[in-house]
Amino acid sequence: MLAANTATDTITVLQANLDDMNPQVFGYVMDRLLEEGALDVFGMPAQMKKNRPGALLTVLAKPEDAARLTQIIFRETTTLGVRQRDERRQTLARKWQNVNTTWGGVRIKIASMNGTVTHYAPEYEDCRRIAVEHRVPLKEVMSEAVEAYLRGSSG
Amino acid sequence: MLAANTATDTITVLQANLDDMNPQVFGYVMDRLLEEGALDVFGMPAQMKKNRPGALLTVLAKPEDAARLTQIIFRETTTLGVRQRDERRQTLARKWQNVNTTWGGVRIKIASMNGTVTHYAPEYEDCRRIAVEHRVPLKEVMSEAVEAYLRGSSG
Amino acid sequence: MLAANTATDTITVLQANLDDMNPQVFGYVMDRLLEEGALDVFGMPAQMKKNRPGALLTVLAKPEDAARLTQIIFRETTTLGVRQRDERRQTLARKWQNVNTTWGGVRIKIASMNGTVTHYAPEYEDCRRIAVEHRVPLKEVMSEAVEAYLRGSSG
Amino acid sequence: MLAANTATDTITVLQANLDDMNPQVFGYVMDRLLEEGALDVFGMPAQMKKNRPGALLTVLAKPEDAARLTQIIFRETTTLGVRQRDERRQTLARKWQNVNTTWGGVRIKIASMNGTVTHYAPEYEDCRRIAVEHRVPLKEVMSEAVEAYLRGSSG
Amino acid sequence: MLAANTATDTITVLQANLDDMNPQVFGYVMDRLLEEGALDVFGMPAQMKKNRPGALLTVLAKPEDAARLTQIIFRETTTLGVRQRDERRQTLARKWQNVNTTWGGVRIKIASMNGTVTHYAPEYEDCRRIAVEHRVPLKEVMSEAVEAYLRGSSG
Amino acid sequence: MLAANTATDTITVLQANLDDMNPQVFGYVMDRLLEEGALDVFGMPAQMKKNRPGALLTVLAKPEDAARLTQIIFRETTTLGVRQRDERRQTLARKWQNVNTTWGGVRIKIASMNGTVTHYAPEYEDCRRIAVEHRVPLKEVMSEAVEAYLRGSSG
Repeated sequence: MLAANTATDTITVLQANLDDMNPQVFGYVMDRLLEEGALDVFGMPAQMKKNRPGALLTVLAKPEDAARLTQIIFRETTTLGVRQRDERRQTLARKWQNVNTTWGGVRIKIASMNGTVTHYAPEYEDCRRIAVEHRVPLKEVMSEAVEAYLRGSSG
Repeated sequence: MLAANTATDTITVLQANLDDMNPQVFGYVMDRLLEEGALDVFGMPAQMKKNRPGALLTVLAKPEDAARLTQIIFRETTTLGVRQRDERRQTLARKWQNVNTTWGGVRIKIASMNGTVTHYAPEYEDCRRIAVEHRVPLKEVMSEAVEAYLRGSSG
Repeated sequence: MLAANTATDTITVLQANLDDMNPQVFGYVMDRLLEEGALDVFGMPAQMKKNRPGALLTVLAKPEDAARLTQIIFRETTTLGVRQRDERRQTLARKWQNVNTTWGGVRIKIASMNGTVTHYAPEYEDCRRIAVEHRVPLKEVMSEAVEAYLRGSSG
Repeated sequence: MLAANTATDTITVLQANLDDMNPQVFGYVMDRLLEEGALDVFGMPAQMKKNRPGALLTVLAKPEDAARLTQIIFRETTTLGVRQRDERRQTLARKWQNVNTTWGGVRIKIASMNGTVTHYAPEYEDCRRIAVEHRVPLKEVMSEAVEAYLRGSSG
Repeated sequence: MLAANTATDTITVLQANLDDMNPQVFGYVMDRLLEEGALDVFGMPAQMKKNRPGALLTVLAKPEDAARLTQIIFRETTTLGVRQRDERRQTLARKWQNVNTTWGGVRIKIASMNGTVTHYAPEYEDCRRIAVEHRVPLKEVMSEAVEAYLRGSSG
Repeated sequence: MLAANTATDTITVLQANLDDMNPQVFGYVMDRLLEEGALDVFGMPAQMKKNRPGALLTVLAKPEDAARLTQIIFRETTTLGVRQRDERRQTLARKWQNVNTTWGGVRIKIASMNGTVTHYAPEYEDCRRIAVEHRVPLKEVMSEAVEAYLRGSSG
């Protein structure tokens, strides 16, 4: 029941309701979890009992990292319970290509399905670094990187 | 530039960014502000700097209550700044009508513009009290109250 | 462990994190997925790493449609990974009844549990079409349809 | 105190709190208001008193349309009060350029500030129509339109 | 794959999409479900088809309560379908300690993992009652309770 | 109409609707605006026309910075219009105090109104640096800093 020609694995989803935590801690916890190997971390606004504007913390993890990341959630947040479930995940094959812009090189991430490119995008951190160093708008850097990629593809 | 046949007044809108407050305090502050005369109080999820899932507190107030409500915001929340602006507000003329349901009386709030009824709704607190006392679904109480109102109007 | 007298089936929930997609594409993808047989599609605001205001796309699908809908998500969005899980779903028995309003017929959707009507509502598209054609407020059309239904039920 | 070389006008912002309205009505009201000349319409999730997950409706309007749009809000929604304020708005100069894609022409919207192009984007409706008619992914159409524009600009 | 030294159980997660319900009903349903034994109840803003600003209702329940709580969701809301999945949940060991404040006693909830205290917090309802009775800011009560706890711990 | 004994100034609020921007750019723009003197920057999820999950960017600025920050918004985002209004802002008097923790010094920010301390909090960046360097939970650092401050105040 999965799309042909993509990779499939199992990931563990960890979730915790945060209805009594200083939001300052949230950004820090995101960074800590990513640094410790979380595949992704995000928050969603949640309207909790007694009219609390809380947050639902979600962490995507490799199954072998789940126990360790759960301990970090307990140590770093105010939650008393962490929920866990496994999900199947399909991912596209991806590769990297370097392109040149006026300000230096940028990697392009290229995803494909069944041999067809379905998505390409300049790597955010490469573009950000150039934008900061050369004081040009980030979107201009991204746009030029895309242009360079398209010229190369169609060349 | 205002719609004809509605009342117009000036209200003061107070706003505070809460990016370091325990969400438990939020529900309490809402109650306190309403109790002290706020016309309305609500929160909106806000994505703040350093990835903080904060809340924007908004209070609608009569201008003469603004200073007092601002002091409550400062005393009860963690904010260091409260913003304030005045807005014009138009409100519909409204009146009340009593209707009978299987479980007792309910007030219907009826709003009209230029002499035409534009909206009617059973009073939430009346319906809630009946739902709790008689252990019937709230939406059933609301529905029966609407039915009674419509029968009366068209009678 | 399921509520008596409702239908139970298994559905597949597909989810994708969108943190680098033009929001214009989102509405289009919703339409595409619904057109291709998704049972429901919705987005939720998500605060993602590096302070990105992303969206979590959720698609409810019949298990046999999951692979096809996953391919559409990959082709139409920027995501590199789609997560999948199965859930049990209980649904109420529902039937339709026609009622007449000043402006024409409207279907009422009636849901029941254990033989008792738990919910009824005028069909949105019927009411919308009347509102557009006759230039009357949508809520007035819905309200009259409800009234017609209640008169009929209690007659 | 305004950015040089952009147009400045005054717009009226209308807002209404919706804490007792069927969300089905919301999408319809957005369409109605846009059709009647609103410059923009959007909703934001709001956590209202008594734990209601309401919505804040915001309408941006030309001052001369404010009264008419306010009447529509009153007729079509459940609100009993509409708030109003004026704001200064700066807008970029914009122009249109046609480009050709594999599937037909697309307009590119080009915005500039002080004579420098700051943003360009393919027109959503043009791309959507092509995507629907030719059954190609919307993002592919948008991407090809951008490519055609860039080729033309640098030619 | 679970963190050592915490309790693990299985809970049932119930979810329903609400895209046509008066938000007034939402707060009432939360209270009803908690009163009937739900472990937690919360809402999340969801952008649904046809531009409806809906809500995703989530209920955490003991598996043996799931059928009963599902019936309440059907009776009290407008949903026609309730989804259900099981998740593993880890919870921290917790205990209570009483401390004295200027205005009376407050319980402190203390959570620990592997014998180390990872979180402590004054009980919200105790603090709220004091704040209401003595007309002092809630955060001042909470702060004094924390101070009393810390003095006691280090004494 | 202002609370006694607080400072009052005028700030400019800038807002832009972003319904066609890659969310990756958002975090970067926040940083850029803060770096260029914005008093605060935040995003709020907005449900825009054609079912776009957009964001409302809000910037709080000193009036003399408004033109410069507006230009940055135009250069760095996809918006074609920036709205502007002035608001009065009241701020509490604040001062700093140093306290010692096991891992080093932390500044405590202390706000007061009419001579009474209304809020105190350890400085986030001080605590974060310690947490990162000493690999201790951030909330433990914050908690110890509060404890040190309270011991000092009551000494």
